[in-house]
Amino acid sequence: MYFTSDNAAGVPPEVLAALAEANGGYTKGYGAEDLSLTVEARLREVLEAPEARVFLVATGTAANALALACLCPPWGTVLCHPQAHIAEDECGAPEFFTHGAKLVHCAGAHGRIAPEALAQAIAATGQSVHNTQRGALSLTNVTEAGTVYSAAQTAQLAGMARSAGIPVHLDGARFANAVVATGASPADLTWRAGVDALSFGGTKNGLMGVEAVVIFDPARAWEFELRRKRGGHLLSKGRYLAAQMAAMLEGNRWLDWAAQANAMSARLAEGLVARGIALRHPVEANILFPLWPVGTSARLRAGGAMFYDMPAPAGQEGARLVTSWATTEADVDLFLALI
Amino acid sequence: MYFTSDNAAGVPPEVLAALAEANGGYTKGYGAEDLSLTVEARLREVLEAPEARVFLVATGTAANALALACLCPPWGTVLCHPQAHIAEDECGAPEFFTHGAKLVHCAGAHGRIAPEALAQAIAATGQSVHNTQRGALSLTNVTEAGTVYSAAQTAQLAGMARSAGIPVHLDGARFANAVVATGASPADLTWRAGVDALSFGGTKNGLMGVEAVVIFDPARAWEFELRRKRGGHLLSKGRYLAAQMAAMLEGNRWLDWAAQANAMSARLAEGLVARGIALRHPVEANILFPLWPVGTSARLRAGGAMFYDMPAPAGQEGARLVTSWATTEADVDLFLALI
Amino acid sequence: MYFTSDNAAGVPPEVLAALAEANGGYTKGYGAEDLSLTVEARLREVLEAPEARVFLVATGTAANALALACLCPPWGTVLCHPQAHIAEDECGAPEFFTHGAKLVHCAGAHGRIAPEALAQAIAATGQSVHNTQRGALSLTNVTEAGTVYSAAQTAQLAGMARSAGIPVHLDGARFANAVVATGASPADLTWRAGVDALSFGGTKNGLMGVEAVVIFDPARAWEFELRRKRGGHLLSKGRYLAAQMAAMLEGNRWLDWAAQANAMSARLAEGLVARGIALRHPVEANILFPLWPVGTSARLRAGGAMFYDMPAPAGQEGARLVTSWATTEADVDLFLALI
Amino acid sequence: MYFTSDNAAGVPPEVLAALAEANGGYTKGYGAEDLSLTVEARLREVLEAPEARVFLVATGTAANALALACLCPPWGTVLCHPQAHIAEDECGAPEFFTHGAKLVHCAGAHGRIAPEALAQAIAATGQSVHNTQRGALSLTNVTEAGTVYSAAQTAQLAGMARSAGIPVHLDGARFANAVVATGASPADLTWRAGVDALSFGGTKNGLMGVEAVVIFDPARAWEFELRRKRGGHLLSKGRYLAAQMAAMLEGNRWLDWAAQANAMSARLAEGLVARGIALRHPVEANILFPLWPVGTSARLRAGGAMFYDMPAPAGQEGARLVTSWATTEADVDLFLALI
Repeated sequence: MYFTSDNAAGVPPEVLAALAEANGGYTKGYGAEDLSLTVEARLREVLEAPEARVFLVATGTAANALALACLCPPWGTVLCHPQAHIAEDECGAPEFFTHGAKLVHCAGAHGRIAPEALAQAIAATGQSVHNTQRGALSLTNVTEAGTVYSAAQTAQLAGMARSAGIPVHLDGARFANAVVATGASPADLTWRAGVDALSFGGTKNGLMGVEAVVIFDPARAWEFELRRKRGGHLLSKGRYLAAQMAAMLEGNRWLDWAAQANAMSARLAEGLVARGIALRHPVEANILFPLWPVGTSARLRAGGAMFYDMPAPAGQEGARLVTSWATTEADVDLFLALI
Repeated sequence: MYFTSDNAAGVPPEVLAALAEANGGYTKGYGAEDLSLTVEARLREVLEAPEARVFLVATGTAANALALACLCPPWGTVLCHPQAHIAEDECGAPEFFTHGAKLVHCAGAHGRIAPEALAQAIAATGQSVHNTQRGALSLTNVTEAGTVYSAAQTAQLAGMARSAGIPVHLDGARFANAVVATGASPADLTWRAGVDALSFGGTKNGLMGVEAVVIFDPARAWEFELRRKRGGHLLSKGRYLAAQMAAMLEGNRWLDWAAQANAMSARLAEGLVARGIALRHPVEANILFPLWPVGTSARLRAGGAMFYDMPAPAGQEGARLVTSWATTEADVDLFLALI
Repeated sequence: MYFTSDNAAGVPPEVLAALAEANGGYTKGYGAEDLSLTVEARLREVLEAPEARVFLVATGTAANALALACLCPPWGTVLCHPQAHIAEDECGAPEFFTHGAKLVHCAGAHGRIAPEALAQAIAATGQSVHNTQRGALSLTNVTEAGTVYSAAQTAQLAGMARSAGIPVHLDGARFANAVVATGASPADLTWRAGVDALSFGGTKNGLMGVEAVVIFDPARAWEFELRRKRGGHLLSKGRYLAAQMAAMLEGNRWLDWAAQANAMSARLAEGLVARGIALRHPVEANILFPLWPVGTSARLRAGGAMFYDMPAPAGQEGARLVTSWATTEADVDLFLALI
Repeated sequence: MYFTSDNAAGVPPEVLAALAEANGGYTKGYGAEDLSLTVEARLREVLEAPEARVFLVATGTAANALALACLCPPWGTVLCHPQAHIAEDECGAPEFFTHGAKLVHCAGAHGRIAPEALAQAIAATGQSVHNTQRGALSLTNVTEAGTVYSAAQTAQLAGMARSAGIPVHLDGARFANAVVATGASPADLTWRAGVDALSFGGTKNGLMGVEAVVIFDPARAWEFELRRKRGGHLLSKGRYLAAQMAAMLEGNRWLDWAAQANAMSARLAEGLVARGIALRHPVEANILFPLWPVGTSARLRAGGAMFYDMPAPAGQEGARLVTSWATTEADVDLFLALI
């Protein structure tokens, strides 16, 4: 029962098979081979964005930081939720790749930026040469609280930003889970809502370490390529990233994997609530934040469960549970039985 | 007949097998799992360096630039050969990761820095607050000209640098080929000669995209870890890099693969010389730079050979041929037959 | 009646005289001439810090950002009050000079960091490789709210930081006003309290554009010199900065000028309170934040007063008034008469 | 007899007078006051460039590095002469402000870039994503060898750059001397020849520490302002920089001062040649590089002369002599008498 993170499991057998299949013969290097082109074509189709450019990198941090650097100048501000991955979990990668932009927090309940907070932050930014200027808005869907933005919520926030001349980045490390959760189309969750650059996650959805950055405006693409190379993120044997991403994007596989993760979180949530356990945030995708009585965590771990502790009010214990493509009903039920 | 680069071939079957084997079950993330620890232990053994720290990244550019950033301050100079990969082929990654260090060229025949050029560059550096200061020396072994530094040559150059307070980086993207070519021990080619940080290549020697950075002084390791994370080069599913590197380091496999590449270059060189074709540099590892009569390149390509053109004197054509673990005697002989 | 800023007035005649006197003959460049050495000696005396190194620059932003860059690595956090000049008014200069450090806000009433907020921020920082690390604490004395830290308050906050391995910077753009206001010795407000680097302001206290950076640990000084040069902040004709600073530091002149500014603010505050006008923050140095009835600002401006508007509760108007060495009792009384 | 540098002398009395005159009353801060506007208007007139934007900074290094950062992206190359001030004497300031651009040397006799060297460097730059890209060309007039570029020479080099899409910076720390030496109009030496940004020197021509950056395309100006602020180079009391620059630009004063410096160098050169002493470079402005017999330098210094040593062929001694607005015929004649 491994609920620490959606990157703790192995990869589905289709990914291994794709690597084996891609291995034959010689290819061009640096993403110029056929598989990389195939991935770009497939993501354009998925996103209904025939002119978008698609670039593969090996980590989500690289995807986010490189995308932001293309949208935000060194003297810009990146507006983001205080719990955003770029704010909390990347050791300053956005500051490094943007050459010193400032991350400004826009709070909001359950991991989602509140429109009023965004409005206030936009108004406060770039009033004179003495302040950092308008740079970029970065949304995260699925959020770090395990909630999602609907297409309408995305469009509202992105629209506010774009009206102020601020381009929009979407950290979609768990984008597949958000698509499944909202039922919205990938296009409605991204460019139709005003998103300029998307970190399209593969790693948390079952790949070994592959993320696609989608740049919707092809005029920005060459800069991205230079930044990627300069950041050491252009792999010479591009086929091995591309093969994995192609395997994930075959048919509805990417959504099926995410649907399994979401379903297992829903099952967990249902079981927890039935046992009287509160959840700190609505469970909308594949992450849960239960609050249970003191002593529960130790008992669960003694029974073989793995998860992270989280802060909690006095008298309770907090935890974070994450499910993935590999989580089974048996895992969930065994965990619930331990409670 | 694919001689464009040692990253054009696929990976040996042992690498695919290792990935499949590593795939089972759940693991810790971010390089804390057992396989990453195994790789560190094995490389310490290979290098006879029991305190060295080992970190995996996905590209040689990342390995080089991160290592240099740990050795050279923003106001430092990186002394390197004018044809060094860090100088010519990384779109300024060393400048990016060091926050603006200056690469200063130290020339020398056949891709090797001449001791006199190094002495002159050291003497000219950091004379006052107005100049960039002493930063790092970066050697490349195998060099970009396909030649190697012996242990003694490495020690001479590294010793000059260290006497001047300058730490030493070794770009070993083709380090296995250098070990095979020189017959020297990995320790003699690195820390015993004065090397502080080594980019230990896996990709050009048969992996999908894995390089190890070896930091010989563990006191520098934490800074490396922070820079790696901040650079987006810490993969969450560390097992997939580690499994490949572990497979390559099993027994003498890493040297066997390099030996095959070197042997095929030697066979090519012998055949070319026998046909009266000059070689621009001594062939010591797995790269050749033939100069042949005008028209030859087109004829070879018509016959199915793939390689890069290089500048050449009037009346000749230049080419670069690279062999790899995957090059066969049949490839070589077919190529030679086309000449 | 010019209360917009303490940099709106001209300079005292002693400063012009000092420039004229310094102008004769030839000198060495780049701060190696006698006057710069004199300034260093005098500031060591003022600060009772015989080993401190002193460097002059032309702006407070340069002083702060260069000092912070010497204390905080690129992956570090700079803890500061949300209204700090480095956070609000330098267009990201600290991020630029540190190569991307992250400013983390520690709130507190009346412009002073609350010890609990600092404790919390320290505890939250640098827990793993995924977060930015402990970098520096930056205090501001006089604060942006016009209040001061006593020596004891400084020592408390700086002590908390140093116990956590965090060096301390003091933005003393109005340091002279803080010395006057607290009655504490310069040493007690700085190194004896745990301050590692001080931006010692000259510009707001009557110079044309001169700040001294005091580095208490001489081992850090060479790095500062390189960063200053590289930042374009090493003036070739050092005598003109030094002459001004020397003039200000002659006898008690620097304190006399600040005392005049503080006294005029006290007189303003007294007059405002007598007229029933509330002050948003205690008036401890040379800045006031009155809240007066709607319509007052326009009437004052019509009468010739100059000042900045500030946010205010409904039904009131907010303003910021700043006094300087040049403010006279007549200015104050005329202003009060307009209310 | 002080020939070490044109920044060793004091400033002309007109500069002190201008400071005293500017000192009265209150002004707006940050270059928004009248004197700064006057300077912009006057430089537009001098340069026949009615739309140019003018920004003052305190050092030549800041002027150069800020201007280059506006022209060259982080992944660009700055083409310059190997002896350029930006390459040799700024401790990597261009790399710092551009966030890591690469300076590529274009050699040429007597401090001037040879057109063939420039053509070769342009052709070699930015061939693929693996290389740094075309960034900027930086010329220096007067060159570090004391020679000048004519308007035609400037136009030839700048034209080559612009044809390749490369914008052009001119380091004019001694621009006044170049105008005097060539007899060309300021416009012909700058924008009419293809220059996009000019560092217009004041310090070496008699000011305390003031340089103007002229941005000929106003669309680039706001970025410059942000970079200047962020670099700590926006002085709050702008009047004191502006007053000096205004004084220098009154009438033909700036050219008169430079003419005096040039004339004194010509007189020195004539006297040296008459005494059989060789000059390493043509003497075209206010710098000379004599080669004299061994022992001469010591004798001159014993007689009170100050200058820098330079490398020289065996049997000779090299020196660098610089004259300024303050150099007198008596200085020159006394020096010559000592030879």
